[in-house]
Amino acid sequence: MNNFEFYNPVKIIFGKGTIAKLREQLPRNARILMVYGGGSIHRNGIYKQVTDALNGFQYGEFSGIEPNPHYETCMKAVDKVHKEGFDFLLAVGGGSVIDATKFIAAAALCDGEPWDFFIRKKPVEKALPLGVILTLPATGSEMNERSIISRVETNQKLGLHSQKLYPKFSILDPETSYSLPKRQIANGVVDAFIHVVEQYLTYPVDSPVQDYYAEGLMRTLIDEGRKVLLYPNDYNVRANLMWAATNALNGLIGCGVPQDWSSHRMGYGLTTEYGMDHAQTLAIILPGVMEFKKKEKEQKILRMGNVLFNIHEGSVDERIARTIGEVERFFRHMGLKTRLSEVGLGEEAIEAVAMPIEKMQWKLGENENITAEEARKILRLRL
Amino acid sequence: MNNFEFYNPVKIIFGKGTIAKLREQLPRNARILMVYGGGSIHRNGIYKQVTDALNGFQYGEFSGIEPNPHYETCMKAVDKVHKEGFDFLLAVGGGSVIDATKFIAAAALCDGEPWDFFIRKKPVEKALPLGVILTLPATGSEMNERSIISRVETNQKLGLHSQKLYPKFSILDPETSYSLPKRQIANGVVDAFIHVVEQYLTYPVDSPVQDYYAEGLMRTLIDEGRKVLLYPNDYNVRANLMWAATNALNGLIGCGVPQDWSSHRMGYGLTTEYGMDHAQTLAIILPGVMEFKKKEKEQKILRMGNVLFNIHEGSVDERIARTIGEVERFFRHMGLKTRLSEVGLGEEAIEAVAMPIEKMQWKLGENENITAEEARKILRLRL
Repeated sequence: MNNFEFYNPVKIIFGKGTIAKLREQLPRNARILMVYGGGSIHRNGIYKQVTDALNGFQYGEFSGIEPNPHYETCMKAVDKVHKEGFDFLLAVGGGSVIDATKFIAAAALCDGEPWDFFIRKKPVEKALPLGVILTLPATGSEMNERSIISRVETNQKLGLHSQKLYPKFSILDPETSYSLPKRQIANGVVDAFIHVVEQYLTYPVDSPVQDYYAEGLMRTLIDEGRKVLLYPNDYNVRANLMWAATNALNGLIGCGVPQDWSSHRMGYGLTTEYGMDHAQTLAIILPGVMEFKKKEKEQKILRMGNVLFNIHEGSVDERIARTIGEVERFFRHMGLKTRLSEVGLGEEAIEAVAMPIEKMQWKLGENENITAEEARKILRLRL
Repeated sequence: MNNFEFYNPVKIIFGKGTIAKLREQLPRNARILMVYGGGSIHRNGIYKQVTDALNGFQYGEFSGIEPNPHYETCMKAVDKVHKEGFDFLLAVGGGSVIDATKFIAAAALCDGEPWDFFIRKKPVEKALPLGVILTLPATGSEMNERSIISRVETNQKLGLHSQKLYPKFSILDPETSYSLPKRQIANGVVDAFIHVVEQYLTYPVDSPVQDYYAEGLMRTLIDEGRKVLLYPNDYNVRANLMWAATNALNGLIGCGVPQDWSSHRMGYGLTTEYGMDHAQTLAIILPGVMEFKKKEKEQKILRMGNVLFNIHEGSVDERIARTIGEVERFFRHMGLKTRLSEVGLGEEAIEAVAMPIEKMQWKLGENENITAEEARKILRLRL
């Protein structure tokens, strides 16, 4: 096992009816800015639950955070914070809203240009405190210190992390997810699954706790992911998906083990260029990474096939091929596509992925050996 | 899954050579009281590593914390804190030292009688900040808010928990465990295993993430526990045991599931009356709880037998009996006894267990139906 540090002070309040507990979590006299997305919370009753809980507090609203949230939109919220003097942010939404709120929290107290957090790795010295009402299980942002923001002007999608950006609390009521469209649920399951894969499917370092945890999350996401398609109104299915997605990226399973994240970094190019759903980019790219890196990842792919898909027999090559096939089949079962051609893209998409890698001179993957050149080869496998 | 809250802000610094990182964790200008046990840290070099890291800080020492730490000893440390004006506590040791340090931290700032924390459930309003250098993987105290203290005068062993008692940081260097006697290592493995059992072996509530996590920890403790007897100098074995023991009681696997804890509460009587090692009390009592509660725990015992011991065939009764047998065999393999007669005790021990339960009017177990009467029946199974 490798040395590591782990610190995660987010308070999780989980379960049915927990939005009413929001009141107890907020500082008295806080001036709260509620940040949310496109208005679905008005239709599904969450807006009412939240504003009922905010009754008596001073608060304002900023709506219109888009999927893959834009720097430009967030900076409008920063203006509102400055003009109206808010000192606490409340994200009500999924990963995009939470990521945006984290960035707003840091940018509001930033001297200088906030985009430098992303391109110059300028550290976040201070940030407004924030809380979360989660409405979409997927990204894990509700229990981590990460934020990913897209800048339209420069066609970039980049990440930031800072311990200053941990939410003070996150309220996870699985019932909020009932009204989500099937596509968003399926995207969330696949996104969370691949978060686990990025921290698991590398090379072994003799870390059974982390491996068992990761396998437990992947098994849960596969089983409950299939169930949610059949029984969309089953509370336990919703609860198990939500808790699995949070655990998939709260830092715990990544302690002391190598991490990959190349599928994520390659996927950003497809999102900025074509507006493709984040999970959809991953479902296309991951099987290519597994195939291209099958020698480096051999032991973990074999273990994954064994544990998740009962693949015990055949040659090493056969077992690897079957495991990649099963992963792809799971994504397809959830309704995602797994080839560029299926989403109407061809060779042109290869450069959309390779160019940002070349520009940023990234060397991706647990062995830091995926450059633009290797990315092109991986994408070619997914035409 | 049941509703739950989870909050654990302990910063973990894990790995080889990490004691040197102590300096970065301590507040400048802190007046630090280092709290430790019987002096083994002088022999194994840990004292030197810690005091080297404390070079330049103002610090004092309080040694002599015993296993199952005494209220009376802790109150002497409280006196020292008051007289010499310490404002930060540093626990260097295993669960006993950490539990004692937590109680000292609360008692030092307590108005009134600190024993009221235990017997009157008086809340901890404030406590001195504390940090931990862990030297013995077992109790999980390094990453939780719990403290268990024994009062010699009244022959009581009682627990306390408060969010004010989370360590600010815990440094976990698996190399500190190399010099531990085999008995302490074995006790730690069994203690951690039973911490998991107390949060797992109840009744199912459809919580796959928690179940997979718990099973992963139990599998790790069984496998690495056997390995540590064969390969005591293997770093990864030590590291995996230490991380598993911490995870066994940091609150995570207990989220949203019923919990038992009856073996622990019954075991306290054997420790206060006969000075028996905590883990040894558990190894004797747990098989009795499993046998006595086999109908209430049936589904989870069958699952445990299947996952941990490959027990797939036979009648329900046979599979339960074999699973209990395998658990007992594991404890014996680690060198612990599993019957009262083996540690020289007879029927008199039954009352030592039953009396505190009667006195405190406890109703133990996940179904709150183990009173002194049932405890007598359980202990009778372990003569």
